[in-house]
Amino acid sequence: MANGKTAYFKEFQIYHDTALNFYHALKECKKQEISRLVVEPGVYKITPEGCAQKVLNISNHGFNGPKRIGVLIDGMEDFEIDFSSATLLCDGIIQPLAITGSKNITVKNLRVKFTVLPMLQATVVVRGDGWVDAKPLEDGARVKLWGNKLLGECAENTWADMDLNIEFNGETGEIEAGTGDNTLGVCAGDVNFEYTGEGLLHVSGIKRCPPIGNVLVFYCSRRLSSNIFCEGSADLTFANIDMCDSYGMGILAELCKNITVDRFNTVREDGHFYTVCADATHFVNCEGLIKLENSTFVGQFDDALNAHGMYTRIAEKGDGWLLVKEMHFMATGIKIFRPGDRFAVLHSRTLIPYGEIILDDVEYINDTYAKLYVKDDLSNIKVGDDLENLTTSPDVIFRNNTVRDNRARGMLLATRGKVLVENNYFHTGGCAFFFESDGEYWFEAGATADVTIRSNTFDRCKYGDWGDAVIQFYPRREEEEGKYFHGKISITDNEFILGTNYVAQFDNIDTLTVKGNSFKAEEGNEPEVTIHHVRCEDVQEDIKRK
Amino acid sequence: MANGKTAYFKEFQIYHDTALNFYHALKECKKQEISRLVVEPGVYKITPEGCAQKVLNISNHGFNGPKRIGVLIDGMEDFEIDFSSATLLCDGIIQPLAITGSKNITVKNLRVKFTVLPMLQATVVVRGDGWVDAKPLEDGARVKLWGNKLLGECAENTWADMDLNIEFNGETGEIEAGTGDNTLGVCAGDVNFEYTGEGLLHVSGIKRCPPIGNVLVFYCSRRLSSNIFCEGSADLTFANIDMCDSYGMGILAELCKNITVDRFNTVREDGHFYTVCADATHFVNCEGLIKLENSTFVGQFDDALNAHGMYTRIAEKGDGWLLVKEMHFMATGIKIFRPGDRFAVLHSRTLIPYGEIILDDVEYINDTYAKLYVKDDLSNIKVGDDLENLTTSPDVIFRNNTVRDNRARGMLLATRGKVLVENNYFHTGGCAFFFESDGEYWFEAGATADVTIRSNTFDRCKYGDWGDAVIQFYPRREEEEGKYFHGKISITDNEFILGTNYVAQFDNIDTLTVKGNSFKAEEGNEPEVTIHHVRCEDVQEDIKRK
Repeated sequence: MANGKTAYFKEFQIYHDTALNFYHALKECKKQEISRLVVEPGVYKITPEGCAQKVLNISNHGFNGPKRIGVLIDGMEDFEIDFSSATLLCDGIIQPLAITGSKNITVKNLRVKFTVLPMLQATVVVRGDGWVDAKPLEDGARVKLWGNKLLGECAENTWADMDLNIEFNGETGEIEAGTGDNTLGVCAGDVNFEYTGEGLLHVSGIKRCPPIGNVLVFYCSRRLSSNIFCEGSADLTFANIDMCDSYGMGILAELCKNITVDRFNTVREDGHFYTVCADATHFVNCEGLIKLENSTFVGQFDDALNAHGMYTRIAEKGDGWLLVKEMHFMATGIKIFRPGDRFAVLHSRTLIPYGEIILDDVEYINDTYAKLYVKDDLSNIKVGDDLENLTTSPDVIFRNNTVRDNRARGMLLATRGKVLVENNYFHTGGCAFFFESDGEYWFEAGATADVTIRSNTFDRCKYGDWGDAVIQFYPRREEEEGKYFHGKISITDNEFILGTNYVAQFDNIDTLTVKGNSFKAEEGNEPEVTIHHVRCEDVQEDIKRK
Repeated sequence: MANGKTAYFKEFQIYHDTALNFYHALKECKKQEISRLVVEPGVYKITPEGCAQKVLNISNHGFNGPKRIGVLIDGMEDFEIDFSSATLLCDGIIQPLAITGSKNITVKNLRVKFTVLPMLQATVVVRGDGWVDAKPLEDGARVKLWGNKLLGECAENTWADMDLNIEFNGETGEIEAGTGDNTLGVCAGDVNFEYTGEGLLHVSGIKRCPPIGNVLVFYCSRRLSSNIFCEGSADLTFANIDMCDSYGMGILAELCKNITVDRFNTVREDGHFYTVCADATHFVNCEGLIKLENSTFVGQFDDALNAHGMYTRIAEKGDGWLLVKEMHFMATGIKIFRPGDRFAVLHSRTLIPYGEIILDDVEYINDTYAKLYVKDDLSNIKVGDDLENLTTSPDVIFRNNTVRDNRARGMLLATRGKVLVENNYFHTGGCAFFFESDGEYWFEAGATADVTIRSNTFDRCKYGDWGDAVIQFYPRREEEEGKYFHGKISITDNEFILGTNYVAQFDNIDTLTVKGNSFKAEEGNEPEVTIHHVRCEDVQEDIKRK
């Protein structure tokens, strides 16, 4: 489609506002079918008022609506934007980059940073009985004290509780060993704050007093944007991208096909211990192949990668139709019902399919409800059960990456495609792998079919909270005799440097292979696993069964 | 278009959710071209999850985005919905009724009420030095104490300051004489609150202590919906409609033509002193005739009627184009630029036009900026000046209405159409009339051309704050010699029962007639007016000039 020509951002400076010029440049590239836009090096500060705008429903973020978008690639094909290592400096509530309804798009050499966020980082300098004084990082924050409570600004003059509070070790940069959420022993909303005359934050009413030098982070977790958001697009490539911070995830892609991510890093800079404020990468109801390589994920507030679908609840049914409901507020408005797609019908507790339907037509009533028109026999389908889209289940390759010192887990994999995880280094506060599909609370789908985890290093994973074992298959609330939620799981030739000795919890698996893994442990610490409801297992001898 | 048939809401009960059934009924009425839908009497409690959804940009409300709409009449023609005096009871953040892109629509016999709002009403029962104890109205409120500050919930778990605080006299129901906003002498955000053991609200840190029996209202003024919202529609009739409360205005119509409102009342019920939480009726960039009759407006938080356009700022210009900016956050996203419309160009301080353009084409960039393509000569047009749409300027008839005991003013009129206000009763806390177009802060346009105010009763108007005179033409920051902002103003045969003796401030008027008005005043109190920058005046002899 494109004309093979390269254009330069400096050619499109017709306004006095940088964001308006990005809008203008992208509009012209689309109109003129330009193949490549080169943005000159530098720092591009953008404010919401000049940004492109589109209503976006960003899965797992939860704040649907018109977003101000710094760089919007909408309805384009065969296009590359090269930022030449420039920084997109977002000054306000901005969706930095979005790709919607596009095909064969490359984004490279980009750095994303925000001026202020509803977040506060502070280093403990004095501690007492039930209190600490902490020195805030000196870079504006979208927070304020309201009485003695710390609130984050989530929209103009609209405030919310600091509902996330974690702690980093000030010397190592790791999550403080043994800690998790609410590191002060109480919810952040119950902590009292006041500023001392010396500009310190006096933090009191706490049950655990962190050591001097440790770094506290409070965040009003309003995921108002994802640094990169992709929807309904195919053949996307991201290369050499640094994320300093964010309102939400690093990359969130939904309903996309074939995504390649190479050298995508979450980056600590300028004394910051935190990086992006949710998952580094997250893929919802995608297809084709998701390939993620040569990247470093550090300091982010959630998992390095999460790939899943969405369970939706059958709310009502009639003659030839089902009314389905998005159950979680972060999953509303995502257009996962596409005529022709194949859906499994399953019990919400076992998540074992008992039927399949093909979608004939769909009527989206609002972001919560959709009415599905189906020609298949619906007589056996029960109101209250869940649907899962089987058409949108990608293959995943995760290779040559580093995951360390982040809140929560390493990877969450819930896709029926072929999954290969190899040659990575994991040093995660929580589980390195957590298989946790859920049809009753988060509603993240679904089962896996073929997962290979090989030749990785697991360096003292699960040194903080967030899960139980280095690799954890979370049990279903109910299971069916002779039926298994997961298919073939193969864990081979990995090196485990043990912190916890609970290497893996295996549950609800058809075929399990654990071979050729090596373990380094302190004296008396030997690797242990639990195995439950597994049809066929081949597990190496030197691992103890709990 | 319609088929002349009447349908009944009870015929459309296919879901277990009332809002979904309204969605379904309206969809079927549209599809089957039904002329009239009768809703059976009763109370219809609706929650957001089943409501119809559309992105709405509601002028003077300021929270654009996907709204959950109880009753959405979209793209319909020749249709009536008769609610048979039923109550639409909105349980959550809901846009109760909206009419978009429709023609010849009648809505009648409707009552609108919310279960809870981010609002607190409390009656003073004890008073001390710098504090009162007040008894809250016992009907849940979307508020909470955060430390010792009172916050209102403006979205799920998102909170804002109580930025509005007014006071009613507990016996008369009037605004407490002499009070206005911030009746406690400090901003509501600076007041301290705590609950006593007896369920009273202890209100301290205040500079004025209201008398026992008076009623305080605190409101987090987030105008998340208008009870009735109309956009891009024509020939609308509203009859016999009661509004008990709201998030925003009673009726907000923008870019509509010909609106008839008959027996539209804001209603105090169940011990409530407040009714709707902004203007009762508000018309932005409308056309044709707005007729409002036989209605009672009491206890609302803003004016009874406001009709105006919107000034937009010329931000940049180029060859054949102007980039214009919506300056006020409550005016963003309104589509006031329509190809073919005629616009005045004016200085923001004088608001006297110095040129006109016809819009050839428009490109809406986002809710803030639009790019206007114009074939007229733009060489004399200055960046920084304002534009006003001259095509959208309706006639107004306001007749046989009562306006009393509300916050703010009676009427704000800023339309170049023919305006007739007759046979009304005004007992307003602030000015009965305020002519206040502004090109620098609120950006509400524009001038008037022909206003007749006759045979009304003004009963002790301006007994609270909000303005200076009973009828006030607010001066422009600058004026032009020999040019006048307002055209022909005629004030005749009205009865003024004087509280303040400052009857009128006349300013910047071409032709002024004040004749045949009668005045009742206490001993020694005689009517006064100020007259400035008026070309031609005919003012009755018995009024003193200040």
